[in-house]
Amino acid sequence: MSSDNELMKCACDLATENIQRGGGPFGCIITDSDRNVISTGCNRVTVENDPTLHAEMVAIKNACKIRNDFQLSDCRLYTSCEPCPMCLSAIYWARIPLVFYGNTKKDAKNIDFDDSFIYDEIKKPTEERKIQMKNIEWEYAKESFIKWKQCENRIDY
Amino acid sequence: MSSDNELMKCACDLATENIQRGGGPFGCIITDSDRNVISTGCNRVTVENDPTLHAEMVAIKNACKIRNDFQLSDCRLYTSCEPCPMCLSAIYWARIPLVFYGNTKKDAKNIDFDDSFIYDEIKKPTEERKIQMKNIEWEYAKESFIKWKQCENRIDY
Repeated sequence: MSSDNELMKCACDLATENIQRGGGPFGCIITDSDRNVISTGCNRVTVENDPTLHAEMVAIKNACKIRNDFQLSDCRLYTSCEPCPMCLSAIYWARIPLVFYGNTKKDAKNIDFDDSFIYDEIKKPTEERKIQMKNIEWEYAKESFIKWKQCENRIDY
Repeated sequence: MSSDNELMKCACDLATENIQRGGGPFGCIITDSDRNVISTGCNRVTVENDPTLHAEMVAIKNACKIRNDFQLSDCRLYTSCEPCPMCLSAIYWARIPLVFYGNTKKDAKNIDFDDSFIYDEIKKPTEERKIQMKNIEWEYAKESFIKWKQCENRIDY
């Protein structure tokens, strides 16, 4: 069991080491509620050619694999930098209740990782976003949702 | 080459078929700008025990693998349901400029997939969110960012 500061130091060390491994300067550690380490993760976007592989995402995927569960509601997440909206949303989906971060999104912007741009975009109404989003609304799309509600074996989450 | 409506119908069919495969009712297709299909994806959260495996995330991962690139700036994304904030952020990170969706987040909420809850949370200041977020601010966290700026081999994105 380590202190919050020690765990944050480890997440920051992962971030620094990751630069030598070709990844971005971001590291993450997930522990249980007693601060026992479950998993770690580093940013592997450019190395693996996968824009979803931020440090937090990798740590969440690894922790869920180890736990054999898609929720981590008793866990703590330590990340070297404030989560971007993708990672923050994944933290909500994983039901992690407590997050510690080192650098802020302002710090990230200063080295050209502009998470704040996406935070700004998400707040906008769909039609004002830089991404063009078109709703093709018809009854056909509803079919899958109707079938879902009728499915007796479904796993709600 | 298919029409936008045909591609959306395929995404919806993937969503419906995915229920039988144990996943949630969500499907996604990514094409190039001429509407040639590059990849598909379905929600595999509960099947793979991975809360990040929404349909759009899987389709983005697959398209990037096929393209051997972490950006898809010439692509179109067709999803059976309006993207949640995690997927929308991943779409921004992947630089996809055009998104078509069928069901809305309101439709999703009606079958208990509450993306709108996360949209509401992201808009709040850190200290007002349901997730407790603590900033451990110290010089140590800055180290990785300083080393990143000094790294000559870095791949900016």
